[in-house]
Amino acid sequence: MTLTTLGSSCCYGALWLSAALFALEPAHAASERERLEAGREVIERLNQGQPQPALEAMREEFPFLADATQGYALGEVWSREILDDRTRQLITVGVFAALGQPDYMKIHAGYALNAGVSEEELKEVIYLTTVHAGFPPAIAASAALAELFQERRQRVEDGP
Amino acid sequence: MTLTTLGSSCCYGALWLSAALFALEPAHAASERERLEAGREVIERLNQGQPQPALEAMREEFPFLADATQGYALGEVWSREILDDRTRQLITVGVFAALGQPDYMKIHAGYALNAGVSEEELKEVIYLTTVHAGFPPAIAASAALAELFQERRQRVEDGP
Amino acid sequence: MTLTTLGSSCCYGALWLSAALFALEPAHAASERERLEAGREVIERLNQGQPQPALEAMREEFPFLADATQGYALGEVWSREILDDRTRQLITVGVFAALGQPDYMKIHAGYALNAGVSEEELKEVIYLTTVHAGFPPAIAASAALAELFQERRQRVEDGP
Amino acid sequence: MTLTTLGSSCCYGALWLSAALFALEPAHAASERERLEAGREVIERLNQGQPQPALEAMREEFPFLADATQGYALGEVWSREILDDRTRQLITVGVFAALGQPDYMKIHAGYALNAGVSEEELKEVIYLTTVHAGFPPAIAASAALAELFQERRQRVEDGP
Amino acid sequence: MTLTTLGSSCCYGALWLSAALFALEPAHAASERERLEAGREVIERLNQGQPQPALEAMREEFPFLADATQGYALGEVWSREILDDRTRQLITVGVFAALGQPDYMKIHAGYALNAGVSEEELKEVIYLTTVHAGFPPAIAASAALAELFQERRQRVEDGP
Amino acid sequence: MTLTTLGSSCCYGALWLSAALFALEPAHAASERERLEAGREVIERLNQGQPQPALEAMREEFPFLADATQGYALGEVWSREILDDRTRQLITVGVFAALGQPDYMKIHAGYALNAGVSEEELKEVIYLTTVHAGFPPAIAASAALAELFQERRQRVEDGP
Repeated sequence: MTLTTLGSSCCYGALWLSAALFALEPAHAASERERLEAGREVIERLNQGQPQPALEAMREEFPFLADATQGYALGEVWSREILDDRTRQLITVGVFAALGQPDYMKIHAGYALNAGVSEEELKEVIYLTTVHAGFPPAIAASAALAELFQERRQRVEDGP
Repeated sequence: MTLTTLGSSCCYGALWLSAALFALEPAHAASERERLEAGREVIERLNQGQPQPALEAMREEFPFLADATQGYALGEVWSREILDDRTRQLITVGVFAALGQPDYMKIHAGYALNAGVSEEELKEVIYLTTVHAGFPPAIAASAALAELFQERRQRVEDGP
Repeated sequence: MTLTTLGSSCCYGALWLSAALFALEPAHAASERERLEAGREVIERLNQGQPQPALEAMREEFPFLADATQGYALGEVWSREILDDRTRQLITVGVFAALGQPDYMKIHAGYALNAGVSEEELKEVIYLTTVHAGFPPAIAASAALAELFQERRQRVEDGP
Repeated sequence: MTLTTLGSSCCYGALWLSAALFALEPAHAASERERLEAGREVIERLNQGQPQPALEAMREEFPFLADATQGYALGEVWSREILDDRTRQLITVGVFAALGQPDYMKIHAGYALNAGVSEEELKEVIYLTTVHAGFPPAIAASAALAELFQERRQRVEDGP
Repeated sequence: MTLTTLGSSCCYGALWLSAALFALEPAHAASERERLEAGREVIERLNQGQPQPALEAMREEFPFLADATQGYALGEVWSREILDDRTRQLITVGVFAALGQPDYMKIHAGYALNAGVSEEELKEVIYLTTVHAGFPPAIAASAALAELFQERRQRVEDGP
Repeated sequence: MTLTTLGSSCCYGALWLSAALFALEPAHAASERERLEAGREVIERLNQGQPQPALEAMREEFPFLADATQGYALGEVWSREILDDRTRQLITVGVFAALGQPDYMKIHAGYALNAGVSEEELKEVIYLTTVHAGFPPAIAASAALAELFQERRQRVEDGP
């Protein structure tokens, strides 16, 4: 993608008008409070009615980051409805596996299982990772996923 | 993940036995020819009956790499059946967008459309990219996706 | 960072209460319209009163992404006041140089010059890149920065 | 690299023919069993006759990934003979150091020492990392390499 | 950036001459000893008069890497004067946060605090990270920064 | 790697002494002029007696970066003698292929050929890239390598 830092004002003046009008659509009246509430609903749905510990741990020192995660990442992006939770979590597991972030992959693999994704489907995502990003991130992700499966089986054995 | 380069031969001797037995399962009799054929079927299904130009372009100088792509990436990994083509392509679009590889994302976004994914669903994946990997790769991916949509609309207008 | 996907409901119930209260602070009444307006002011201030072409180019196909860039990235994050524009752009130039994104680095280097950063200061950031991320991204960034300096000198010669 | 998702069927029809013929070469008759056996020989040669613990640990939960590592990564790619083991391991150590994967670098540095690479040569690779990818991955790699040297000296002191 | 590996000797012959002359400037008489001394002064200024433990730990096994860090990274790049310590550390914190290197970010965040940067300013850099590189590296950086703040507050409570 | 930002002055005071003594070794008397000369010899040896165009192009706007590349990267790191040119270039080709920097990989692949590495050996490095970092960077590297081979064959046909 080539980007230039200037455009002739004539062209963008017009574009800008449409943009300004766009900014007036009712959809844009959502308040920050509504976005935070939407994010809270998403996290509770993904996390079996529990707040997300890492998110809560951020609130004292990093309230802006906690609010941005809840209001933007979860409230705006994650609350959209064109993709279902299963698909969104499968994509996210594949992305964090390929980026070499097994801790984040593990969190979202847990959300995926909560949303009805099977262990077999999660393993398939990791197999794809060998093609997307090579064997090291796939092996690291498989170890994190095996931990998650083990923890959840243990919780089932331990019972309520 | 902590990895150690040595294990006591006692333990791994036993593991190794099971591994050796595993290697004798009928599933493992697949020949390289069968794997290449499976890969050919995958690429033709994804690419509307066409060979993949980038793959074919590699054959003369890099026959091993072309065969590895066709036999391993496509024939072994991509031909598996637990995930459907739609889901596998949506994951791959999300991964290549997040990794900052818009050229590869564009190829797989085309496969996704061929597999029945909608333009709206592909846009949702790009919105997720802002959370996964930040705004620059999302903006670069959106530009590549807009090109793809434009090219395909143009082809429809031009007709057969 | 180790993250666990569950916490005892007792502890997080309390945390959650404080979070819920937090969500009621007046600061959170900002509407999407106000955020978009804040983002518009930021981009015009950084870009000498011009809209940002890459941003405007996204609006037709990717209105959500354009709004997220304007409302979240610019309106919420970039409009904060603890760091001044000079410092924020110098950091961003250093980040995009190290991440190997010279196109984005060039855009923000232009904003930095508009905010009063000197060419010499921008060069220093690129020198730091050799330590942060090695010589290839530093050399790529230096080429993009040289282009920017050349384009702006040309515009000055061409006059209004 | 510019990639297009379509080519005129005329041209690729011909290319495809040659590809199909290529797929019939004797070299391609290798069965999955033969590939797994080739991979087993590679890992035993690199790892002083021992199976690779991380590989074996994957077999139960991720048999496909273990087989892909053994059959593709080791059996196909690593078993080739144009590069010798010393060179292949030195390259791999340099790559994993630059990619910021000190755990994987450490494993392959151990294989390199087993293949006759000297400690001094491994240190040189890390010095190159400062140029390739900056000082942080080089410093992280140096710490992992120092651990490896220490562990192996300790094993020598402890004796058989 | 497009790079070619050859140029006509005519053109570069001239360029080379100027390069050769450049190499004779007095500024280039600095000895390795002077560079190491300059690096020592930088690290002591940043680290409150203390040597840098990670740097010292490298000296025995990796003297070249320790000298390159002290003589090049610190002595040449970090000792320059166009950017002040505050700005240089803020940039470095933003870069290591975006690159997903929270350990290095934490070290430089400590230097930043030693140089008079406020905790609030460091938090702002992390908020920028959500735009530069997504939420996972920002959240990881926030955890490392919270640890640093906690350690320093503890040291103040413990007193001298 | 865990790093702490403080160490008791007692321990590091001693370490520091040895470091200071180390700084007095004759090896450290090398002047900047000698380092630049060493770098010039390396580039001329690698590039068949030609200056490196990208390096020369940096001199006017970025003399410090050009000197750092020539004096540190080439003069200090690349001029070391424990690894030979063939091995150092093969490692560098593998690293830049895995990092997704085909332009830099192409430059060093040219140096490798100049140092006596065969086309077949370079192809092997690219095959390793599929394991190290996945198929997209390997395919991108193969395209850059095919360009290089074509350019050099063309030059041979064109003759002196």
